Order: sequence, then structure tokens, then C-alpha cells
Amino acid sequence: MREFFALSFTVGYSHALEEEPGEMVEATVPGAVQLDWARAHGYPPYYYAENWAQYRWMEDVYWHYRAPLPAPPAEGGQLLLCGKGIDYRYRIRVNDQVLYEYEGMYKPFSLDLTDALTGRDTLYIDIWPVPKRPGRPDDRSQASLCCKPPVSYGWDWHPRLIPSGIWEDIWLEKHGEPYIADAAFTYELDAACEEAQFICEAQIARPGETDGRQPLQMHMQIANSDGMLVYDTIGAAGEPRLAVGGRLVHPDLWWPNGSGPQPLYTVRLELLSDGQVVDVWERRCGFRKTELVVYEGGWEEPQQMPKSRSDPPTTLLVNGRRVFCKGSNWVPPDIFYGTLDENVYRRQLQLAKDAHFNMLRVWGGGIVNKEAFYDLCDELGILIWQEFPLACNNYENDKGYLAVLDRESRAIIRRLRQHPCLALWCGGNELFNAWSGMTEQSHALRLLDHNCFEEDRQTPFIMTSPLSGMAHGGYFFQEADGREIYEIIGSSRNTAYTEFGCPSISDLEILKLALPPDEIFPPSPDSSWTSHHGFGALAGRGWAVPETVAHYFGESPDIQTLIRRSQLLQAEGYKMAFEEARRQQPRCSMALNWCYNEPWPTAAGNSLISWTGRAKPAYEAVRQALRPTLASARPIRFLWNEGEDFEAELWLLNDAAQEVDAGEVTAYLDIGGVRTAALRWDAGTVPAGANLRGPTYRVRLPKAAAGGMELILTAARPGLESVYRFMYRPRQRIAQQPKAADMNY
Amino acid sequence: MREFFALSFTVGYSHALEEEPGEMVEATVPGAVQLDWARAHGYPPYYYAENWAQYRWMEDVYWHYRAPLPAPPAEGGQLLLCGKGIDYRYRIRVNDQVLYEYEGMYKPFSLDLTDALTGRDTLYIDIWPVPKRPGRPDDRSQASLCCKPPVSYGWDWHPRLIPSGIWEDIWLEKHGEPYIADAAFTYELDAACEEAQFICEAQIARPGETDGRQPLQMHMQIANSDGMLVYDTIGAAGEPRLAVGGRLVHPDLWWPNGSGPQPLYTVRLELLSDGQVVDVWERRCGFRKTELVVYEGGWEEPQQMPKSRSDPPTTLLVNGRRVFCKGSNWVPPDIFYGTLDENVYRRQLQLAKDAHFNMLRVWGGGIVNKEAFYDLCDELGILIWQEFPLACNNYENDKGYLAVLDRESRAIIRRLRQHPCLALWCGGNELFNAWSGMTEQSHALRLLDHNCFEEDRQTPFIMTSPLSGMAHGGYFFQEADGREIYEIIGSSRNTAYTEFGCPSISDLEILKLALPPDEIFPPSPDSSWTSHHGFGALAGRGWAVPETVAHYFGESPDIQTLIRRSQLLQAEGYKMAFEEARRQQPRCSMALNWCYNEPWPTAAGNSLISWTGRAKPAYEAVRQALRPTLASARPIRFLWNEGEDFEAELWLLNDAAQEVDAGEVTAYLDIGGVRTAALRWDAGTVPAGANLRGPTYRVRLPKAAAGGMELILTAARPGLESVYRFMYRPRQRIAQQPKAADMNY
Repeated sequence: MREFFALSFTVGYSHALEEEPGEMVEATVPGAVQLDWARAHGYPPYYYAENWAQYRWMEDVYWHYRAPLPAPPAEGGQLLLCGKGIDYRYRIRVNDQVLYEYEGMYKPFSLDLTDALTGRDTLYIDIWPVPKRPGRPDDRSQASLCCKPPVSYGWDWHPRLIPSGIWEDIWLEKHGEPYIADAAFTYELDAACEEAQFICEAQIARPGETDGRQPLQMHMQIANSDGMLVYDTIGAAGEPRLAVGGRLVHPDLWWPNGSGPQPLYTVRLELLSDGQVVDVWERRCGFRKTELVVYEGGWEEPQQMPKSRSDPPTTLLVNGRRVFCKGSNWVPPDIFYGTLDENVYRRQLQLAKDAHFNMLRVWGGGIVNKEAFYDLCDELGILIWQEFPLACNNYENDKGYLAVLDRESRAIIRRLRQHPCLALWCGGNELFNAWSGMTEQSHALRLLDHNCFEEDRQTPFIMTSPLSGMAHGGYFFQEADGREIYEIIGSSRNTAYTEFGCPSISDLEILKLALPPDEIFPPSPDSSWTSHHGFGALAGRGWAVPETVAHYFGESPDIQTLIRRSQLLQAEGYKMAFEEARRQQPRCSMALNWCYNEPWPTAAGNSLISWTGRAKPAYEAVRQALRPTLASARPIRFLWNEGEDFEAELWLLNDAAQEVDAGEVTAYLDIGGVRTAALRWDAGTVPAGANLRGPTYRVRLPKAAAGGMELILTAARPGLESVYRFMYRPRQRIAQQPKAADMNY
Repeated sequence: MREFFALSFTVGYSHALEEEPGEMVEATVPGAVQLDWARAHGYPPYYYAENWAQYRWMEDVYWHYRAPLPAPPAEGGQLLLCGKGIDYRYRIRVNDQVLYEYEGMYKPFSLDLTDALTGRDTLYIDIWPVPKRPGRPDDRSQASLCCKPPVSYGWDWHPRLIPSGIWEDIWLEKHGEPYIADAAFTYELDAACEEAQFICEAQIARPGETDGRQPLQMHMQIANSDGMLVYDTIGAAGEPRLAVGGRLVHPDLWWPNGSGPQPLYTVRLELLSDGQVVDVWERRCGFRKTELVVYEGGWEEPQQMPKSRSDPPTTLLVNGRRVFCKGSNWVPPDIFYGTLDENVYRRQLQLAKDAHFNMLRVWGGGIVNKEAFYDLCDELGILIWQEFPLACNNYENDKGYLAVLDRESRAIIRRLRQHPCLALWCGGNELFNAWSGMTEQSHALRLLDHNCFEEDRQTPFIMTSPLSGMAHGGYFFQEADGREIYEIIGSSRNTAYTEFGCPSISDLEILKLALPPDEIFPPSPDSSWTSHHGFGALAGRGWAVPETVAHYFGESPDIQTLIRRSQLLQAEGYKMAFEEARRQQPRCSMALNWCYNEPWPTAAGNSLISWTGRAKPAYEAVRQALRPTLASARPIRFLWNEGEDFEAELWLLNDAAQEVDAGEVTAYLDIGGVRTAALRWDAGTVPAGANLRGPTYRVRLPKAAAGGMELILTAARPGLESVYRFMYRPRQRIAQQPKAADMNY
């Protein structure tokens, strides 16, 4: 059997590839060189105030890792250096002998060190400065000829901090016997999802000489989620490659969260020599099929002559059944993505599942996540829309870049295609918009379609988001043109809302991580609010938008009040947008807000959870909005005045796979304790996976005190109730507007 | 040197693959089995009346070709059977030995017969019945799992007649010395189109044994269009493959018709053994680059939030310069495409060039043309939009079909990519519309993009027409909803009009080919007018539309009058639509009418030229509309009444690569000799490749006799003048409408 050895690294930097580093410090691997150096030299935390700027120089030097190597293996044995990825351009040496040189962070490697070992050996990993496209300013466009996440180069919610280093696992393996060098399990479900045709391919390697070989056998087993064997075969192991194919009838299908269970099978290969197990390969798999189809009724459009095409398909079928995709955009949960581990992923993904998400879009500006992320999504039933590392740039037809993208994308596909959660491949973010300038003719996107077709053609591929019919935005409760999110989403007819946002100021706990105490209130653009995206981000507007809060509520006397109001707008905005997208079924097939999480403590932003994994109030609002079945209202604006006719359509939303008897739904307004007359709607039964449009609740707004107003829906069936919050103003002269302190928000 | 031998075939049919045909008849090769059998058995012409139905049975039998083979070559020699394509599924035998079996009509073959020859040998080619997708009715959907042209299965301008047989050249080659088995010349132009990097790859074969070989040399020459050598190199010929790469600085660029000259270079390979030329390969090439980009201003759209993508690119750059694509849709000029030869192609393509066409869309419902077609387009400067053989069907993810499409598409790409005329690959016709139901997820289209990317990535690829922003239709002067083509095209804002049609009744000469004399007038659906598409075609309406002619002109007393009026509407409709599309630059980038030619004598249809190659009046109107520079009007409807304010915007259209001084443009109406007051517009100079929008000519229509009315534009610069025809009616009661005989149309 193989033996594993850990490596113990130190790291230092120099100004040239062949120059020795002046000082070596202890390295945490996986991790990032920046964090190692900062730890050793007492740098203040990068996420506080303007400290991030002190780390900036580290992107432009060469970094050098060193680790002592063990003694060479006994006669005939092999010592392999195995790694899942190093960030970004690097070479690997044993002493002075270069064994490997590569550009890219996703392709794993397995290097045979045996012949290079002398008995006193050192492993060197030399890393180039971060890649920058020549002639570009210090922004994301520098990443437009590489496969690093462009977000690291600076974004409107991410400072410029570009990690380098060994960001994935790396280890040594010693082999004395034949072993399974690589293996993959793939399958195809038939049209009815009743039978899986699978193939398990393995590559066999032997240390030492090739003469006098014992013939090998391969024992393959598949066990279902209860551990019961459903396939068991043994046969001669062809060398160096073998393939075992077979069929499973009526496999237990894997379903996304809310649509069914997530049974995971285990595939196990045992390599036998002389009847003894000499190596084992094992992995989990799930059986599911995903397809993108045109929405019901979509083929009838367009109707007018001259006639264009019908919209591209965005309706997802899982195992042949339509699934409305509810979820969010996933960004790296840390600037230094090398530090991510299962704990971070699990906390955030469990919250996603609890909020009834069934999909996350792994946005192309960030990283392709570590394996633990996808393992968890397999377990939790979170479908993954996976983008390649292209976003908001024109990745031009450069031969060198395309060669890197070819290798990196194949590595990504081969790794992720094995996960049942992997629902959809996408070339990258907003590539068909002006700020990117790419098209279907761009070679990078044709290459990605080409590679997905070769490596995983059963999974849908789209070139970018948005495509025609789909849309991104808006990103504010109230856009600069004055329109509220109620109107922006409510008046749209898109096939998928794959980004839409509503910002809030972060919780005070988070602000304290990010901002010096004296800068916290009032928010000012001349403070760390700006570097933490409260001001200046996204074409100058920033995410704090205190003027929007003031527009609705007047001045806020303190940070707690400002945060509460800001977060109320975010929660109400998101609630309306998610429910509205659900109402627009079947034309609309997806609602994924921008964004779910964040890479450091932002002062303000669109995320539902903060860097620490703490949920904002908007998280709870979204969780309510995404319940499988709920009574829902369709509010048209936030601010209402005495004497106006308040109105909102009443709906029953049902994504459940079974019909639901809601019974009577009641609606009324509560304005600071003053209740309006209730409307009673005998909604009755709403069919499986369908919505019911009910009456419009309409009432003239009575006189009451200025402040919060709530629309309350209850239903005979418990658990369907909903509350929508608004701002109410009594009739009076503007000069007599209530002071902030008088209001209950 | 190689020797060529012709083959002399007979053909017969049977009801099973292994069954002997009862009778053999003389075969014309290339051709079609239907024509051979009909000729031998005195069938009446398939294009007359309902005779086509008599040929119908031939699609369901096995056809068997036979040809005697010459004696085996002398010791060490090879006898090859070479063919460019056989239609459709076939096998090739020598005596009883099956040497080759293939499905598909486009992949060439080269079979070594040597070992199968005994001295008294017969070549057999057995052809399966035409493929039909099981469970489908007798229409184009039967072609949805094969690579035959679906049009043969019946279309609204093509009867159901499905050719079979040896449709391309086939011959024998005898080799006694080493020879060039295959070669290809490809190149890439740099961004500025100033340098071509080329590579010429060749495969060398040797008859006889491999011992005692003489080393070979390869002499490569490139001559420009004046015959002057621009590249000349000689070196050892690597076996069995060699590649010669090099650069040409400032090659003479190939331009489409109207944009510049079409210089064609000659690439010549000479294979030398002992200094003697033993084989030669030669072909023409032209240096050009084509790209599809977003139109000027297109990146500013869409503007609204939520924001979708910008439209897919349809603006063609040739050698970096924008070219507005003017032309038509090319369909097979004969039902029996095996009979096509350079003469047919030349006549029709010369007419296309004369009409200022610079592009033809080779529509996916028909064939990929024979080589002579593309050679002529290279010479004439006609850009080719080439579709793969998919149209108006859902070509599903069937593994067997995809394997055939993979082989056939690669053969098509490898042949056509060598032609400078080849501007654009397209997956097929109207595949993203309801009647096809395909999407970007369809494996057939992903496979085609994949193969084009591998074999010819420098040429743009689109999956289908129309894409978003582009449009097909309308297809009538007046649609069923009453809107005229003036309004339909005039109120649209599409990025490319890649199909739009206006039908007319065919010339009397053509009607006489198609219809029995007593059926010609009046046109009736209960006659061969129907099988010849005058009635019933295209969802029941048909192309004769006598009611439209009557709507404008009243009853027509005879066929000549009916034809003249019908053709006047077609001419005016096409003129307006082409000029309008030109006015819509730069958003609009293409105007390709449906359609250019026709496969048999139609009684009525949208084509500009008839089956015999005779031009309809619409051809001349289009030729006028596509002049590089012209004075143009923008009429809004056809029918005008006394006392109304006639109006039309005046424009100067200029596609020329240089500015044009038009001087003063004059506009007036002539109503049966009554002239209205003239408008004089000092248009002056119109820049290169730009249009000038002038004043609106507006005049109250005076009293005149009922009948034709002409808007006449003249310009100081000769050659720019234009005439637009309308119908005029004096004010009177409807009962007093003039009789048809009173009118000058």
C-alpha cells in the first residue's frame, strides 16, 4: 500500500527567479505567501483599515518554497510529489534539477522524484510574480491573459490583494508495489433516468523494473448510500489502462435540495497482486441528469415578422423534472483562498441549504473551489453553476493564453464532472457585455465549449451570463434613476435573474473588524469606508448609500439605527425580488441574487452573510421568500402616504413537488398598531410546482403616526404566513416631517 | 506520374442489399440513379405536371452500380479507386470482397484495390434506400437523423424527390512511383493583414515494398496571380507526412466583389525522386481574413436594468474592413444535384456578381456544393456563408447520427476552408425556432462548433440563422395580416436580414415547362399550380397569391398581365427591402433575400432567377438597389389615392470604399404623364461606406388617370438615378374603379 508523508515548508522572496531569498520564514501549506510573511514579520491584519496596502508589494516578487525531502525509497520503490495546485506560475526542483514548470493553478501534478534523490535533498518550488497583462492599469484587466481569479486584482467588493503560493494540498507518496495512478468514474443516464451506463477507467503504474511482473487483478465495487453492494466484479487489470463498464438499473437518483434526497454511492477499486490488495481508490458519486430547455411557452416567441429566434434555454431539468433554481452567487469566502477548508465551506453551505437554496452560481471572477466545497454540495443538494475563471475582461485570441486555458479548463472539468452537484458549465461572467466585449466568436469561449463537449457533454454549457433573455441587475434598493427594485424586477420579463442586488451596511461587529472606531459613524468617503466599499465602488456610488436610507427614513442618529434601516431595505428588497422571480415562472427559471457571501469584512455590500459567516437580516428574509410554499404579496413601492390607495396582488407560491391546500388567506395592514380591514381570499389548493394569482388587496390608507407599516398575510395552513414592511407618512407639510427618532424603524 | 482511368457504370435496382438487380441500364456518372432509370425507360420529364410522382418509388429500393476494372498494375504498382462522394449510404466491393462501407455523401475516399484484383474484376457499388427516420411522416423530418439535404424530402418550393447515386466524380488512379496522397495549404494573417504565416502539409505514399527506398525531395512554389514566384523552396520530403511552413509578407489580399480585386495565388508541390518529378499537387488560394464583430454602437445596448447581453455579432470584417453583405440565399439549382457542373454554376454566379452581390448564403436545407461552385466564388468575389446540412428539424442527440455528422462535417470543413470565398460557417437553418426546437445545448451544434474550431478556427462560426437580433421573413409583398413589406422591413431594427422574400409568378416560358397548357390560366389550386408551389405551400398560402395582385390591380385578363403585375410587386418589394436594409447600417450588416435560384420550374416563388437561369424583373430591380452608390427613396406603401400627401424620405446610399460627389438630387412623381413639382436636394458628397439621409419629399397627389405612378430620382452624377413604382387611384366611388384594361400596369 502507498505511504504518505507530509512536507514542511519555509518560504522567502527574491527579485529574480535564480536569486536566493534573503530570509526564509515558516510556511503554512496550503495557504498564501502573503500570510506567511505577514505572520513572521508582525504585519497588522490585512482586513483592518488600510493595512491591505502594506501587502501590495508582495505581488511583484519571486517567492521560493523549500522543504527537506526524505531518504530515497528502497530498491524498486518510487517517491512521488503530489499536488492539487500551486498559484500561479511555478517550477519544481529537487536540488538544482528542474522537474516541472507550469503556468496555472488548477492542474494537479504527480512527479516521480526517485531518480533525482541523492539522500540529502531539498525540494524547491519557485513562484513567479503574479501575471499582469502588459500595458494595463492596476485593475482586473491585468488578469485578462491568465487563469487566476480576476477578482484578486480589485473589484467593487474586493481590495487589490493577489494571493500567491501553494494554495492546495501537497504531499509525498511512497510506492513499493503496483498502484492506481489515476481513476475516473463516469456514467450516462437514459432518457427515463431508469438506467445508468457507467464506465470506470483506471491507470495502473508499477514502481521498479518491468520484468517478471505478477499479473494484476482489479476488484470493483459500487455500494449504495446504505452501504449495500449493488455492483461487484473482479477481473484481470489491463495495464497501463483499464476500463470497466456496466449498468445499474433503477439507481437511486440524486436530487437538489427541496426536490428529493441526495443518495451518494461509493465506487471502490481494489488493485490485487497475488490476491493481495496493494492499492485502493474510492470516491462517492451520485446519479442525476441535468438539461437546459426552453421555458414552457417559449417556443411561441417571438411572434412578429421579421422573426428572430426563441430565447436560449435557461429552464433546468433535473432527472427530467423542472426545477426552479433558487439561490445566490458564490464568491471566494476569503481573499486568501488558500486558507479555505471544509469548516468554512460547511458553515456557509449549511446556511445556504437552510435558506432553501438549491443552486449556487460559482462566479467566474473568483476561484474554482477546493474539493471539499463540491463534496458538501453533493451532500447538501446544492446544484452548482460553475464558471471558468473569466470575468468582465476581453480574453483575446492569444495563443499562449489559450494553451493555458486549455490545460486548466480540462483539469477543472475532469475534477468537477464527478460531482452530482455540478449542474451547469458557464464560460464566465458578463463576457457578452460592453465592459468585456467578448462574443460567441471569441476563441477562449469556443475552446471552453469544445473542452466541455469532449470531457462532459452530458452537462449543459453556456458561454456566459447573461445570455439573451437573461439579465443581471439592478444592484440597489433604489437605482440612481430613482426606480425601486419593486419596479425594476416587477416590470421585467427575463428568463433568469442570475444577478440582482440590494446593499446594506454590515453588522456593527463586522464594521469593527474593518474600520477604526472613530471612523464608524457617520460614514464618510474620507475614511476606510471607501476601501471597504461603502463609498466609491461600482462606478463611484458605493454600497453604503446613506442617502437612500435618508430618503426613506430621514437622518439616522447613530450607527445602530443606520444599520437597522439599511438592512431593512435590503431585506425587503431581496424578499420582493425573489418572490417576484418565482411569480414569473415558467418564463423565469432562476433567481440568484448578487451575492451570497464576501471575501473580507466589507463596510457595506450586497451579500446575505458576512465574512465571518454571520447572517444579515436579509438572509432571514430570503429564507422566508424561498420557502417551498408561501402566501406572497406583490408590493409595488416602499413609501406610502396617508389617503393613497395601497395595493398589492396576493399570490400563493408553490415550488413543492406536491399540491398544497392553503385554505383561506387573510391580508391586512398594520400601521403602528392601526389595522386596516382584512381581505379574505379562499385560495384553496395550489397545484404542485405552480403559483396561484389571487385578488389585489387595495385599501385607502388611514391616518396614523409616521413610521413603519406592515402588510401581514396569514393562511389557514400554518407556515405560509408572510410580512412585508413599508414606510408610511401622514399627510402634512414637508417641513413637518417627523424626526427620525419618532419612527419605529 | 499517376495515370487516370475513367470508369463506365451500369446501374440497376433490387429490393435487398444482397439481391441481384433484375436489369442493368447505362449510368451517367456523376448523376443520379433516378435519371438513369428514367432515361432508359422513357419516363416523362419529372419537372412537368405531376410526373415527379412517378419517380417516387425509387427512394425505397437498393441501387447497384457495376463497372469493369482494368488489369492489375505491374509489379509494385497500385490501383486506387478515388471518389469525392456517393449519395448516401453505400458499400464498395471488388467482386465479392467488401472494401469500404460508409454513411454520408461528403467524405471523399481513396481505396487501394490492388490486392483485390485478379485480372477479371468488377467494381460494385451498392446503395441503400434513402434514410428515413422511423416513425415520421413523409416530410423533411425523415431527414432529421442523416446528413442528406432535407429539402429533397419536400419543401414549400421543392417537390419530394430524393436523389441517390454517385453524385460526385469517381475515377481510377494508377501509381508506380511515390506520390502525394493528400495535401493541404492553410495560413493565418496577422492582425494588420500584412503577413501570412502558412503551412503546407502533405502525405506521401509509396506503392510497393518499403525497402531500398530512394530518399525523396519536395519542391514547393507559390506564384502570385501574375504567375510570378513569391516562394520557392526545396528540401527532403519527410515520410509519410511532411509540413513546410513559411511567411509571405504583404500578400495581395483577396476582397469580395465591390471591395477590391480577387488575386488568386497558386501553390504547387512537386515530389522528386532522384531529382525527377514523380508527382505534382497544385491548388489556388487567396489571402483574406474574415471576422464577425458587434455593429458600431451595439455595445451600448441594452441600456435598461436588469441588463441582458449585447446582440451577437453579425457585422462582417474582411481584412479588417467592414463589408455590408449584399446577396441572397443559394439553394440547389437542380433537384438532381449530381448533374450540376461548372456551366450551371457559372451562369448563375456570374449573374450574382453582376447584381453587385458580395455574399451568398448556402442554405442548410440544400447540398454543400461541388468544388466548381467554390472555385467560381473565389474568382468572382462572392463570399460564402456555408451551412451544414441541417434545417428546420430537431437533430437530436443520437450517437449514430452524431458519428456521421462528425465525419461528414470534418470532410466539408477540410475541403472548403481552402477557399478564400468561405467567410462564415453556420450550423444550419432556423434551428433555434419552434419548428426545429434545437438550442445551444444540442449536441449536433456543439459538435459542429467543436469541429470548426479544430479544423478552421480563424473562420467565424454561428450555430444557426437567425440568432438574436437577426431575423427571417416576411415572405410576401403583403403578409396575411395586411402589412406590406415596406412596413415590415421599414419598422424593424434587426442586425441582419438573412431571409426576406417577395414572390412572383414565374415567366411564361417557365410556366410552360411546368404546367399543361390548359392549366396555365387562370391559376387554380386544382391543377399542377399546386405541386409547383403556386398554391398550398408555406402553411397553405402558396406563392402565386393572385388575391394580392387583384387587391392592387383588380382582375387580370390573361396570364401575361397577371405575370407582369405579380413580377412588378416582387421587383418593387425587393428593391425597397434591400435599400431599407442598407439604410439601417451600421446596426444592420446583411441583406440576403429568400431566395436567389430554384431547383426546378416553380409556378411561383421568391427566387430572382428561374430554374433555367433566366432572370426575373426582380433581378434587375435588385441589381439597381445594390449599386454601390445610388439615390434612394424610402417609400412607405404601394397604393396611393388622389388628394393624399405622398411622402418618401430621400437618401444617398454609398457602399463604395471612396466618397462620392452626387451633386444635386431631383425627385418628382410621374402619374401617367402628369408630373408633380420637383424637389431639389443639394446632396453634395457622401462619405465612403456611409449613407446620407436627405429631406422628405412630400406632395399632395393631383388628379390623374388611374394606374401606375412613378417616383423618379435623378442626380447630377450619372448612374445614381432610381425609379420607384406605385399604384395611383383617382378619387371616386369604389364602384367606379377603373377596369384592369384601363391601367398601364
